[in-house]
Amino acid sequence: MSLPEEFHEIAGRVNNWGRWGSDDEIGTLNLITDEVVQGAAACVRTGRRVPLGLPLQQDGVQTGMVPGRVNPLHTMVQINLETFGPGTVAWSDDAVTMGLQSATHWDALTHVSHSGRIYNGRPADTITPHGGAEFSGIDKARHIVTRGVLLDVPRALGLDRLTGDHAVTPDDLEAAEELAGTRVRSGDVVLVRTGQIRTYLAGDRHAYAYPSPGLSVRTPEWFHARDVAAVANDTLTFEIFPPEIENLWLPVHALNLVEMGMLQGQNWNLEELSTACGEEGRYSFLLSATPEPFVGATGTPVAPVAVL
Amino acid sequence: MSLPEEFHEIAGRVNNWGRWGSDDEIGTLNLITDEVVQGAAACVRTGRRVPLGLPLQQDGVQTGMVPGRVNPLHTMVQINLETFGPGTVAWSDDAVTMGLQSATHWDALTHVSHSGRIYNGRPADTITPHGGAEFSGIDKARHIVTRGVLLDVPRALGLDRLTGDHAVTPDDLEAAEELAGTRVRSGDVVLVRTGQIRTYLAGDRHAYAYPSPGLSVRTPEWFHARDVAAVANDTLTFEIFPPEIENLWLPVHALNLVEMGMLQGQNWNLEELSTACGEEGRYSFLLSATPEPFVGATGTPVAPVAVL
Amino acid sequence: MSLPEEFHEIAGRVNNWGRWGSDDEIGTLNLITDEVVQGAAACVRTGRRVPLGLPLQQDGVQTGMVPGRVNPLHTMVQINLETFGPGTVAWSDDAVTMGLQSATHWDALTHVSHSGRIYNGRPADTITPHGGAEFSGIDKARHIVTRGVLLDVPRALGLDRLTGDHAVTPDDLEAAEELAGTRVRSGDVVLVRTGQIRTYLAGDRHAYAYPSPGLSVRTPEWFHARDVAAVANDTLTFEIFPPEIENLWLPVHALNLVEMGMLQGQNWNLEELSTACGEEGRYSFLLSATPEPFVGATGTPVAPVAVL
Amino acid sequence: MSLPEEFHEIAGRVNNWGRWGSDDEIGTLNLITDEVVQGAAACVRTGRRVPLGLPLQQDGVQTGMVPGRVNPLHTMVQINLETFGPGTVAWSDDAVTMGLQSATHWDALTHVSHSGRIYNGRPADTITPHGGAEFSGIDKARHIVTRGVLLDVPRALGLDRLTGDHAVTPDDLEAAEELAGTRVRSGDVVLVRTGQIRTYLAGDRHAYAYPSPGLSVRTPEWFHARDVAAVANDTLTFEIFPPEIENLWLPVHALNLVEMGMLQGQNWNLEELSTACGEEGRYSFLLSATPEPFVGATGTPVAPVAVL
Repeated sequence: MSLPEEFHEIAGRVNNWGRWGSDDEIGTLNLITDEVVQGAAACVRTGRRVPLGLPLQQDGVQTGMVPGRVNPLHTMVQINLETFGPGTVAWSDDAVTMGLQSATHWDALTHVSHSGRIYNGRPADTITPHGGAEFSGIDKARHIVTRGVLLDVPRALGLDRLTGDHAVTPDDLEAAEELAGTRVRSGDVVLVRTGQIRTYLAGDRHAYAYPSPGLSVRTPEWFHARDVAAVANDTLTFEIFPPEIENLWLPVHALNLVEMGMLQGQNWNLEELSTACGEEGRYSFLLSATPEPFVGATGTPVAPVAVL
Repeated sequence: MSLPEEFHEIAGRVNNWGRWGSDDEIGTLNLITDEVVQGAAACVRTGRRVPLGLPLQQDGVQTGMVPGRVNPLHTMVQINLETFGPGTVAWSDDAVTMGLQSATHWDALTHVSHSGRIYNGRPADTITPHGGAEFSGIDKARHIVTRGVLLDVPRALGLDRLTGDHAVTPDDLEAAEELAGTRVRSGDVVLVRTGQIRTYLAGDRHAYAYPSPGLSVRTPEWFHARDVAAVANDTLTFEIFPPEIENLWLPVHALNLVEMGMLQGQNWNLEELSTACGEEGRYSFLLSATPEPFVGATGTPVAPVAVL
Repeated sequence: MSLPEEFHEIAGRVNNWGRWGSDDEIGTLNLITDEVVQGAAACVRTGRRVPLGLPLQQDGVQTGMVPGRVNPLHTMVQINLETFGPGTVAWSDDAVTMGLQSATHWDALTHVSHSGRIYNGRPADTITPHGGAEFSGIDKARHIVTRGVLLDVPRALGLDRLTGDHAVTPDDLEAAEELAGTRVRSGDVVLVRTGQIRTYLAGDRHAYAYPSPGLSVRTPEWFHARDVAAVANDTLTFEIFPPEIENLWLPVHALNLVEMGMLQGQNWNLEELSTACGEEGRYSFLLSATPEPFVGATGTPVAPVAVL
Repeated sequence: MSLPEEFHEIAGRVNNWGRWGSDDEIGTLNLITDEVVQGAAACVRTGRRVPLGLPLQQDGVQTGMVPGRVNPLHTMVQINLETFGPGTVAWSDDAVTMGLQSATHWDALTHVSHSGRIYNGRPADTITPHGGAEFSGIDKARHIVTRGVLLDVPRALGLDRLTGDHAVTPDDLEAAEELAGTRVRSGDVVLVRTGQIRTYLAGDRHAYAYPSPGLSVRTPEWFHARDVAAVANDTLTFEIFPPEIENLWLPVHALNLVEMGMLQGQNWNLEELSTACGEEGRYSFLLSATPEPFVGATGTPVAPVAVL
C-alpha cells in the first residue's frame, strides 16, 4: 500500500520543507513574529479570560481505543505529612501518569510521519525510545503566545454541533470567518469549533470518539494560504473520522505536521469560548498556549487560555 | 511541638480567610481582575517572549531527597506505527510519570497545612487519596494571566547569585523594585530571582537543592501589603533552607499558602528573563502561567511565559 | 447505614484476632508450617508445571469500572542502546505503571476494612498515603509456598462455567472436594474455579467483570473450619457480584481479610490447571505464589505456579 | 568499534542458537524438564522457606546512574473508601510505576543484543516500542521452578564479601561448589553469592552500584559446560564492573543472554539464604522464581523463594 496520488499533489502544494532553513525544527511557529505578538496584545479589550483545557482526570476522554494512550492517573504521594514533627507545618505531594496525547494537547510535528520522513525531510527513525524525537520534539516549541481566532463553524451554520459525518471544508471555515468579522492572517492560531466535545461533556466519551466530525483533507491548503501558525479543535481525532477518502487514514495529520510543519491541537474545550465570543461580539483574542516542555516528546498537555 | 508565637503573630497580620467569602478556593488570585489583565496586555511592547519552564526530563532538579517526588520519566508508547498498513501514515505516542511538584510548578493552596487547617479555615483532612484536594485543588485556579514583575535581587545587589544563607528580605525586594522602575501592585505576579538555579543549569542539582537562598519569613507581610496575586522564584525550596528560625520549618509556605491564600511557584528559570529585562530596561510584562488542571492536585507543572 | 446483624454473627464465628498474638500481621499464613511445606513437596509427582497468572498488558481485565485501577502500561525506556559506542553490546530497558489490584493478584489483609478496623483489630487509619499500610502490608507475607488444592466447581457440577448469579456455597466446595479426592486441610491454599475467566479469555472483559459468579457469604465459615491459609479464584470480584444480600457489599472480603486474616487472590487463570488436573486425575499440588513485596501495599501482582 | 576476537571465540563455544529449534524463545529454560523438577521437589527436607527479593520501594537500589531505570514509586489510589455508603465495607487500592530492571529481577534474553542480533539469531530490531520484544519477551518464560544451588563464594574463600575488583572465576565457582557438597547439573538455577548486597542493606546504594564484584567473562563457558538453566546473583551489574577487559562492556550479558540463551538475575538478596544454608549444611533446594509475565518485556520483577 502507498499513499494515493491525490495526497502527494496536495502535499506538494503545502510543503514547507526548507522554507525556514534546513535546520528548522518548528515550522509555522516561525510565523509568530514579535509584531504578531504585539497585535495579539492589542486584541485584549475587556481582560476576560477563558481556559480551554479539559480537567485532567482518570475520567478523561480516552476510551481505551488507542492502546497505551492512558487517561491521567493522579495519586497522592503524601497527605499532610509532618516531616519535622507533630504540630509542625504539614505538606502534601502528588504524582501522575498519563499519555501525553490523552487530554487537551498539542501534537508535536513528530507525532506522525509518512514515507519514512518527518517535517523538514528528516528521517522518521530519528525518533527513538531513548530520548524520543531528536528533532522537532515538543520542547523545541518554546512558547506559543499569539493572536487566536475562533472559527465557530456550527454557529455560522446555525447548528448546535456538527454531525459525525461532517468534514469541515474551506467553505465552512470562510463562513465562520465571516461570522468572526476578522480575516485569518499570518501567525494566527486558529481554533476550529465543531461542538463535538459536547458529547464528552454530557458524559458519553464513546460518542465523542467516534464517529467524529473534523477537518477535511481540503483544509491544509487553506491554512497554508493563510499562513497560520497552528490549528486546534474540539475533537479527539482532529480530522474527520472515519476518513473522507477510503483507505487514506490520517491525511490531515500528515499534511499539517509533516508537510507544512504546523502544530495541531486536540480535545480543546471551545464551549465557554464560543459563549464568550458570542457575548462580546468578537472572535479574536490573545491566545496563550505554551506546551509543557517534555524533552523529545511527540505531544504534550497544554492549558490554553484566551484573553479577550 | 507547636508553631512559635512569632509565627502566629505574622499569621494574624497576613490572614485572608473569609476575605473573598467562606466559599472561596483561590485566594489572592481573586486580585487578578479584568482591569489588571488589561494593564498586563498594555505592558507588551516589543512582543518578545521568554519561557520560564525547565525542560521536563529524567535529568531534572529532583535529587531523591524528597521521597516520591520523582523527576519526569518520559517513555515512548509507539514509534512510527503504521496502524493502517505498510506505507500508510505512521504515528508516535508517549507517556509520562512525574511528581507534580518535581519541576517548574505551582504549589496549590493545599500543598501545605498547619494546625489541621488549609486556606480559608477548611479542615486539612479534606485532602484524601481518592480525589485529592476537595477544596483549593490546583484545577480551581482556572487561568493565570496578569502583569508580571521581575524582582532581580542579585542584580540589584550587584551579585551573580545569592549565597545559600541569604534570606531575601523586604529590603531586598524594595532594592529590586527600585531597579525595576515600577511599583508592585495589586494583582501582580512577582518573580523573585535569586540566581540559585544557575547551579542546576551548571550541572549540580545537589548544590541547587541545599543550602538554598530563598524568601525570608519577613516577606509574606510585604506581599500582603502589596496585594500580589502570586509569587514564584528560581529555587527548589522557595524559602531559605535550612530555615532562618531554628525548628520553624516551612513558615513561608504556611503563611503564603494557608494564611494568605497565595500560590507559590518553584524551579522557575529566570535567567533568560533577567537578561531580557536588562536588555530592554524594563522589568514588567504580561505573564501567562496557567496551571495544568489536574483535578484535586496539590501542585502542578506549568509552562510560564513572559511577554515583553 | 451499618453492617447487618447477620454479618456480625458470621464475623464472630470466623474471627481470628489475637489467635497468633496481638503483633501478628499475616493471619492464616501462619498455618503454613514447615511440615505443611514438606507435605506440599511430596505432592510433586510428574513435575508438570502450570502457570496461573494472566499476561500483564494494557489489554488486561480492567474495564475502567473501578477508578484508578489501571491495566499495566508497559513502555520501553531504551531499545538496543549502544551506551559504550557503536558496535558494542546494546541493551534495552522497560518500565511499567499499573494498579496493584489490576491483574492476577493477592489482596493484602489491608485491602478492606470495616467499622474502622483492619485485621487483628488495628485502626484502619494506619493505612496512609505515605508508606501505605503500616501493618499487614503485602510485604509482610514474605513467602507463599504450600499445598494447593483445586476445587473445580463447574466440573463437579457438570458445567462449563458457572452463571453470573451463582454464589458458590459450601455444598459446591464439598462437591468439588469430592471430585478432587482429597480433603482440604490446615495450611492449604484453595483455588476455587468458576470458569468465569473464560469470558475474558474469549475477549469480553465487560462480561467477565459483571455479573460474576463468586464465593457466597456462607463460605468464610467453611474456610475457617478447614483452617485454610488462603483462597484464590478466577473472577474479578472474588465474591458473587452483585451481592447475595441486598445492600451488603463485599461481605466476603470483610470476613476473609478483616475478621479471619486470610489472603484472597483474584483473576487467577485456572483453565490450564483444570485441564492438567483432569488429565492427571489429581487436584492437589505444590503451589508457589509469593507476592511481589511492595512495601506497605494493599495488594500485589503475583505469578503463581502449580507443580503437579 | 567492534567486539574483540576473544569475545567471538568464547561466543562460538557457548552458542546455543538452533539447539532447541529455530522457533525457540526460551533457551536454557528448556533444560528444566519434568524430571529436574521432580528432583527439585526431592530437595525439600525441612520445609524452611527463604525469600530472595528485595522490598519494592522508592528507597531501592537504583541511584539514577542508569537513566530511566526508576525505583518503584508506590502510591495509594484509594484509602478506606466507603463506595457503598457510610458504615459499609471500605476498600483501599494502590498503584505503582517502576523500571522493570530496577529491583530484584530477571533479565529477559532480549535485555541485550550485539551485532544486531538477539538469542537464536533473530534481528535485534524485533524489539519495538509498541509491544516490546516480539520474541523472547519475559512472558515466554512461563514458569521457573527447579533445583537451586547456592554457590557461596565469599564463604568458600573465608571472606565476608568480595571486593569491588573481584571477578568471580570458574575456580571460585568450583570452590563454592565443593563447599556446597553437590555438583551443579543440567537444569539447575545457580545463585552466585558475592556479598556485595550487604553494602546496600547497610544503607549505601552508591557503594553497592560501583565498583562491583561480579561474574568473570570466563564463567559463561563453565555455565555452558554444566548446562545450567539460569544464573542469578546479589549485585546490580551481574558481571564485574568496571569490566575486566578494557573497552569490552557487558560481555557476560552478551554471552549469557544472546549466545547461550540463558536468563540472568540481579539484585537477589542471598544473605538470609546464606545463613540458612550454613545452618542446614546444604546448599541445594527447590527454587521457585517465576517471572511476572509482562508481555514483550526485556526484564521483570521476581519474588524468588528457596525451599529447603
